[in-house]
Amino acid sequence: GFAKVDHHRQKRQGFPEIIFGEGKTAEQIITILEAMKARQSDVLITRLSEEKANQILRVHPELTYAKVAEIMYWKAEKKQTVSDNYIAIVCAGTSDLRVAEEAAITAEVLGSNVKRIYDVGVAGIHRLLDQAPVIQQATASVVVAGMEGALPSVVGGLVSHPVIAVPTSIGYGANFHGLSALLTMLNSCASGISVVNIDNGFGGAYSAVLIDRLAKGIK
Amino acid sequence: GFAKVDHHRQKRQGFPEIIFGEGKTAEQIITILEAMKARQSDVLITRLSEEKANQILRVHPELTYAKVAEIMYWKAEKKQTVSDNYIAIVCAGTSDLRVAEEAAITAEVLGSNVKRIYDVGVAGIHRLLDQAPVIQQATASVVVAGMEGALPSVVGGLVSHPVIAVPTSIGYGANFHGLSALLTMLNSCASGISVVNIDNGFGGAYSAVLIDRLAKGIK
Amino acid sequence: GFAKVDHHRQKRQGFPEIIFGEGKTAEQIITILEAMKARQSDVLITRLSEEKANQILRVHPELTYAKVAEIMYWKAEKKQTVSDNYIAIVCAGTSDLRVAEEAAITAEVLGSNVKRIYDVGVAGIHRLLDQAPVIQQATASVVVAGMEGALPSVVGGLVSHPVIAVPTSIGYGANFHGLSALLTMLNSCASGISVVNIDNGFGGAYSAVLIDRLAKGIK
Amino acid sequence: GFAKVDHHRQKRQGFPEIIFGEGKTAEQIITILEAMKARQSDVLITRLSEEKANQILRVHPELTYAKVAEIMYWKAEKKQTVSDNYIAIVCAGTSDLRVAEEAAITAEVLGSNVKRIYDVGVAGIHRLLDQAPVIQQATASVVVAGMEGALPSVVGGLVSHPVIAVPTSIGYGANFHGLSALLTMLNSCASGISVVNIDNGFGGAYSAVLIDRLAKGIK
Amino acid sequence: GFAKVDHHRQKRQGFPEIIFGEGKTAEQIITILEAMKARQSDVLITRLSEEKANQILRVHPELTYAKVAEIMYWKAEKKQTVSDNYIAIVCAGTSDLRVAEEAAITAEVLGSNVKRIYDVGVAGIHRLLDQAPVIQQATASVVVAGMEGALPSVVGGLVSHPVIAVPTSIGYGANFHGLSALLTMLNSCASGISVVNIDNGFGGAYSAVLIDRLAKGIK
Amino acid sequence: GFAKVDHHRQKRQGFPEIIFGEGKTAEQIITILEAMKARQSDVLITRLSEEKANQILRVHPELTYAKVAEIMYWKAEKKQTVSDNYIAIVCAGTSDLRVAEEAAITAEVLGSNVKRIYDVGVAGIHRLLDQAPVIQQATASVVVAGMEGALPSVVGGLVSHPVIAVPTSIGYGANFHGLSALLTMLNSCASGISVVNIDNGFGGAYSAVLIDRLAKGIK
Amino acid sequence: GFAKVDHHRQKRQGFPEIIFGEGKTAEQIITILEAMKARQSDVLITRLSEEKANQILRVHPELTYAKVAEIMYWKAEKKQTVSDNYIAIVCAGTSDLRVAEEAAITAEVLGSNVKRIYDVGVAGIHRLLDQAPVIQQATASVVVAGMEGALPSVVGGLVSHPVIAVPTSIGYGANFHGLSALLTMLNSCASGISVVNIDNGFGGAYSAVLIDRLAKGIK
Amino acid sequence: GFAKVDHHRQKRQGFPEIIFGEGKTAEQIITILEAMKARQSDVLITRLSEEKANQILRVHPELTYAKVAEIMYWKAEKKQTVSDNYIAIVCAGTSDLRVAEEAAITAEVLGSNVKRIYDVGVAGIHRLLDQAPVIQQATASVVVAGMEGALPSVVGGLVSHPVIAVPTSIGYGANFHGLSALLTMLNSCASGISVVNIDNGFGGAYSAVLIDRLAKGIK
Ligand SMILES: Nc1ncnc2c1ncn2[C@@H]1O[C@H](COP(=O)(O)O)[C@@H](O)[C@H]1O
Ligand SMILES: Nc1ncnc2c1ncn2[C@@H]1O[C@H](COP(=O)(O)O)[C@@H](O)[C@H]1O
Ligand SMILES: Nc1ncnc2c1ncn2[C@@H]1O[C@H](COP(=O)(O)O)[C@@H](O)[C@H]1O
Ligand SMILES: Nc1ncnc2c1ncn2[C@@H]1O[C@H](COP(=O)(O)O)[C@@H](O)[C@H]1O
Ligand SMILES: [Mg+2]
Ligand SMILES: [Mg+2]
Ligand SMILES: [Mg+2]
Ligand SMILES: [Mg+2]
Ligand SMILES: [Mg+2]
Ligand SMILES: [Mg+2]
Ligand SMILES: [Mg+2]
Ligand SMILES: [Mg+2]
Repeated sequence: GFAKVDHHRQKRQGFPEIIFGEGKTAEQIITILEAMKARQSDVLITRLSEEKANQILRVHPELTYAKVAEIMYWKAEKKQTVSDNYIAIVCAGTSDLRVAEEAAITAEVLGSNVKRIYDVGVAGIHRLLDQAPVIQQATASVVVAGMEGALPSVVGGLVSHPVIAVPTSIGYGANFHGLSALLTMLNSCASGISVVNIDNGFGGAYSAVLIDRLAKGIK
Repeated sequence: GFAKVDHHRQKRQGFPEIIFGEGKTAEQIITILEAMKARQSDVLITRLSEEKANQILRVHPELTYAKVAEIMYWKAEKKQTVSDNYIAIVCAGTSDLRVAEEAAITAEVLGSNVKRIYDVGVAGIHRLLDQAPVIQQATASVVVAGMEGALPSVVGGLVSHPVIAVPTSIGYGANFHGLSALLTMLNSCASGISVVNIDNGFGGAYSAVLIDRLAKGIK
Repeated sequence: GFAKVDHHRQKRQGFPEIIFGEGKTAEQIITILEAMKARQSDVLITRLSEEKANQILRVHPELTYAKVAEIMYWKAEKKQTVSDNYIAIVCAGTSDLRVAEEAAITAEVLGSNVKRIYDVGVAGIHRLLDQAPVIQQATASVVVAGMEGALPSVVGGLVSHPVIAVPTSIGYGANFHGLSALLTMLNSCASGISVVNIDNGFGGAYSAVLIDRLAKGIK
Repeated sequence: GFAKVDHHRQKRQGFPEIIFGEGKTAEQIITILEAMKARQSDVLITRLSEEKANQILRVHPELTYAKVAEIMYWKAEKKQTVSDNYIAIVCAGTSDLRVAEEAAITAEVLGSNVKRIYDVGVAGIHRLLDQAPVIQQATASVVVAGMEGALPSVVGGLVSHPVIAVPTSIGYGANFHGLSALLTMLNSCASGISVVNIDNGFGGAYSAVLIDRLAKGIK
Repeated sequence: GFAKVDHHRQKRQGFPEIIFGEGKTAEQIITILEAMKARQSDVLITRLSEEKANQILRVHPELTYAKVAEIMYWKAEKKQTVSDNYIAIVCAGTSDLRVAEEAAITAEVLGSNVKRIYDVGVAGIHRLLDQAPVIQQATASVVVAGMEGALPSVVGGLVSHPVIAVPTSIGYGANFHGLSALLTMLNSCASGISVVNIDNGFGGAYSAVLIDRLAKGIK
Repeated sequence: GFAKVDHHRQKRQGFPEIIFGEGKTAEQIITILEAMKARQSDVLITRLSEEKANQILRVHPELTYAKVAEIMYWKAEKKQTVSDNYIAIVCAGTSDLRVAEEAAITAEVLGSNVKRIYDVGVAGIHRLLDQAPVIQQATASVVVAGMEGALPSVVGGLVSHPVIAVPTSIGYGANFHGLSALLTMLNSCASGISVVNIDNGFGGAYSAVLIDRLAKGIK
Repeated sequence: GFAKVDHHRQKRQGFPEIIFGEGKTAEQIITILEAMKARQSDVLITRLSEEKANQILRVHPELTYAKVAEIMYWKAEKKQTVSDNYIAIVCAGTSDLRVAEEAAITAEVLGSNVKRIYDVGVAGIHRLLDQAPVIQQATASVVVAGMEGALPSVVGGLVSHPVIAVPTSIGYGANFHGLSALLTMLNSCASGISVVNIDNGFGGAYSAVLIDRLAKGIK
Repeated sequence: GFAKVDHHRQKRQGFPEIIFGEGKTAEQIITILEAMKARQSDVLITRLSEEKANQILRVHPELTYAKVAEIMYWKAEKKQTVSDNYIAIVCAGTSDLRVAEEAAITAEVLGSNVKRIYDVGVAGIHRLLDQAPVIQQATASVVVAGMEGALPSVVGGLVSHPVIAVPTSIGYGANFHGLSALLTMLNSCASGISVVNIDNGFGGAYSAVLIDRLAKGIK
């Protein structure tokens, strides 16, 4: 067939292959997810438009679609490790919501607890400082910001855990579709910050979940 | 001669033409400054290396050289308007000192009071917040930052006066010689921020002085 | 909720939080503006398409929509300081109108007088020189230009007040969506020019209003 | 003074402020490190040339200089938590050594064990596969690569722990001083990879150490 | 007429001029192909949308349309040299299919045998290693990859024949429409790799066919 | 030998091949110029450092070296067409002198009269307007400017002859080594402006001379 | 009104102000052209879509619309200088037609004769060499090319008159919307080539017409 | 040790690992080459400065240094297949010599015959056409060009074998250190052209040699 699903990945990496929904037809996705479910694999599809989600739901109503996050998923029943650990998902403005939610849902589906701290951009710094304690208690932060992308630098200076910075493409003009926020984050003066691709909420969460698992003693 | 000094500028704009020292020989600068002094004009030379400054000082010991700022100047005796107004010169790290001092000396020579708030980058936000009151009382702020250049966004959210942001070329890698800080500042979410060229401390101060003069009722 | 309106901003900065209309639904905007009006706050929404404006007007006919500027606003009745001061809004060509009007309406809503000097690009320099006196009498100029963006350099050489330069995305080919005009303005030989993001008429006006307030003695 | 050392950082973040040696004179660095030692703080100086290191060693022979890594440090005697955990420092070619060593020494000084797996670039994939088991047992990998920077993608597919990718500026022509490797790493198809600035071995190690501490149960 | 078909090319280069379908109307293409068929020339049209293909098929049902590849062609009956030689068309992900098929069909129409090795991206390296023997036996490989574009580096290290690397525009954010994959391939550490334009499956195949002909002893 | 001098060029194009001095040794240049002089050809060498010029002058004292322009030349005695026509060489600031002189000397050596109008940048527009009549009487203008490069737009609006714009690399920060001026000139609103490479005074003059010859009736 | 037509331009520059049709409504254009016709001015509108052209033609059927060139114009009856001079409009491929025709129609409307030499790209060099004599006899060439944009370099080496190079945005991938062709033309080794903006056929023709007028003795 | 020489490569790819001399000390290179010679391996070192070459020659006088090419090599005595096949190394200008020679020497050391066709840039097209027959008889061409890099497009249109295009960093201003030539070559209209990194004469030759071997029947 056209695709070689990496069924071995769950074993090698602890999670099954995640399906990148953009640029695949609903039919192609159904083929892939059926192959995965046939092997009892969990399913996670990112960047899936509502229209394609609805086409898939007609055939597979057992899947769940998270609309803002544009994520669809299905999880086998298994007993979840109970833990107080959580990942802080922090975002700068309401326009960053889609990416922040992509991160939040990904983290939850992959088995971590999440706390959302949204709309706390640096131009009104007191909003962020008010939330500092809840962020500081997390095992990792995923910090999502567009425009100038300064939020991770400030968060990075407040916490002692790893920060995964996610630039978004929100902005205009000299923003260059997220380049501005990306460069800001790569050049951050704060230590303990690493960066994923523009709009890659999924990727930010994935790294955070791996960290959270280590903190829980899962290796 | 090779240069047409814009002697009319003092009348038209309130300040004489400023000499850009980079790429001019000491001899060329001496020719220009003598032409200016012959007309009782104040003199301000920016981006002047210590070596060239010493050559000029040998001929014109009446000028003053500000070493960190790389600025040389001479001011005619005239009574200065006394005022409590001041411009806040804020900078992120010790590496931004040259540009911050270029701004500070320029502002002072052009007739404004200055308060320096240095090494208050956003990765240790409490250092900045401690200084917020003194910044808030200024008529304008010149905020100098390299690396990710996030400082003006935070300052802009704390004050109600105009902020002139000056990106510096401090950094490496994906900093691209100040491009990162420049883009950050142009994309700032905070209102009331405008930006000058990378490393242009002089330009930032010049705009701030024009603002400070308006605040003093000089038009 | 999804948004944390910065209600404290009016106190801290003299103006309430401004709503960025792009990328928000009419419903989201209505929620935010009702929260603001509930606290007697003035309301200013930028980059709002006519279609969304009409949806909002159906629910809140008391707001005003400025079509060319794509701005919607509502101001509480309060006595306005009367003043002869004004801001000059200068633009190069008829294609820059949307951005110039965004600046003009913003300045007016925020409480400044405005004079519009439009279609005076540098390729026909006499048109600008004819208008020089009216520009020179302003407390600040907002100079809007696309294509090569040379206008602020010439205006900056004619006036003794601060110039806020606004590059627009008008042009094609090697214009790179406003990059050409942006770089021109950042590299200007004239002193007293600072720059905001491409197409950011709002930002240009905001800085000019802060300056105009200082000139009026409001601090 | 010219610098405000962030003495509070050790408390807030678990490590003292790290000194960026580039662009500071030996004198400035001595001033800062003495202020830190006066408070019993550990000291870590990165990007320090051999010449400046020697000047400092003359005054402070108790510090250690790691030549390839261009790092100088001093650690107070304290009992180290013993652990089998380690961080894998993986690099593609012999030209990436300086950056890889900057990462390795940083990690060791900050308290983690390190295993070095060097010169295992993807053009001879068997060299990497031979080392896969030792990499897979680590708590985190710091993967350093210049030229096309493909190594983190392959490592990311082999391990189930977080990978911090460090692009280097090694290369020529269309490498654009590390941009090529940086983009490669940001666009990686493998999950669990996050990226730091070009040549930022220090930053890569810092994030890895934070992860390793969580894995050891230190929070 | 508007076009000067290079009828001499078949003689000079062994193949007729290929028609670039994008940006030409169905009518224009019909005019050109009729001129070519009038001279017994083979016909190959690339980047042809299904819609335009159908318009042409109505008039010229003797042509064949390869839908995924977006290629239309017609070949005169002539006896084909029989050979065991083949070109390996290797691609990284299912999203690269259009470009991979453009390469595969081009190569077949121009007279080479082809083996397709698809969805073997480096993040699951075992999938590629499983296919190594079939790739190594080819006379040339065309390696198609988007995102970070690392596949040609790994293939280049496994084979002893020339590799033509084809970057695709698949990706988002810091991918910059294929720039990331392009730079990766140009900077490859592996020897024997040369690169064609982003998404240019046609160009990659054309070079590979010229090589395959030399290997068959056709000059 | 290593070079194939295009001796046929004088016939085909009216001028002999010009030698690009940068990156050639004095020895190589002497070999080439002797080959040219052996055929009675005029000689023009551009971008020649003073040091290499002196080496050549020792062997060929009959050549002339124009120091500011960094040009060396030798012209056979022939009667020159006398003409009132001239080319205006206009430049913005004193830092653009090298490039302006490269243009001026090139034009003179190739047989045109030249008038120099220097240091008339747009930030003091009256300086340019004072010189407008002498510029308007030229057959062509070569307009040289660095920084924001706005001068050709203003000149282009004042004259009715072709303008060749030459961006220079003078500037810093967001100037990007002349890119800013180059883009400005390519995007000029004024008609009749065409552009040559950054710092290419030679190329600007060459085009202007071809125009001037047509105006003199030489074809 | 919203526009200040530069009625003085015909006097100053020999041609009236040209209307840039893109981004103006049919209504705005009608207002401007009526103002111009009221003063007996010729009218030339570039970059005008067929749809807007039809709207204007309904009101002003006396204007002419050149469909491929997307140009509309109206010329007052006046006696045309008869001349054998002509401008060569040369283009590389059939996809460059729109820009080539924009140049050709512009030149004709502005009063020059034109010869069209189309589809003579450098990949089949004999097609160009066959047409060399007709190009060499022109007073100026406008050379239009997309993709790699190599054509002006070859033409520039064949002729002794000025060449105006026009890059087009035809291409894909690493073409970056015409940047590739633009850079090629700016870096040309051939002398006597100057360049206008990407897709600016109008600008290329305008400069060529100014040259042709000088050659005809019109100043 | 610090380096893992890929001794297996000769077997896997037909050639041993090639040493990249830039950024390695003479001592490091000696260590590596002795390890290789100990296994009877041929040795090829590229980008080796004359100074380091001399240091190595003092210890290993049996190696040969090609000065212009900056290549050092040593070949074991073995009987060479005699063949009439050759690779054409074509270059545009005398400044491209270093890269062209890097290609030529590489090809010869790796076992192919070479013909050099130098200084045949497209601005004097007859020089290239004179040499067409010798180029057309080659099994592959390596075409080296800086500035605008147009030469491969013209060569590609003349031959029926694969062309490897090598852009060089020769040029200035908008050349951007070879970017201009690189983009030209990637966008070539001629078929059968593939491209290697800027200044990578070695890489161009390596691909050509693999092709030449296939043409000789070596697989
Ligand atoms: N939103 C996303 N952004 C980046 N990578 C993703 C995303 N979603 C899935 N992936 C990765 O893409 C791979 C699948 O690609 P594909 O074979 O095209 O479905 C998965 O293994 C994931 O690692
Ligand atoms: N550091 C600086 N950065 C930018 N512009 C400057 C600087 N110093 C002086 N200038 C401007 O440069 C102009 C003088 O340029 P010049 O004629 O080359 O000396 C002055 O009128 C100033 O506006
Ligand atoms: N998909 C393609 N990508 C790049 N070049 C192509 C492609 N298809 C055809 N060509 C080239 O484009 C030329 C024809 O261009 P045109 O005259 O515009 O049809 C042919 O000679 C081919 O060399
Ligand atoms: N300053 C210059 N800038 C651009 N091109 C030049 C310059 N000087 C000479 N040339 C061109 O370079 C060609 C000679 O190149 P070369 O064979 O390397 O000496 C000449 O034919 C000129 O067209
Ligand atoms: Mg908000
Ligand atoms: Mg500090
Ligand atoms: Mg106008
Ligand atoms: Mg190695
Ligand atoms: Mg896949
Ligand atoms: Mg000057
Ligand atoms: Mg064609
Ligand atoms: Mg030459």
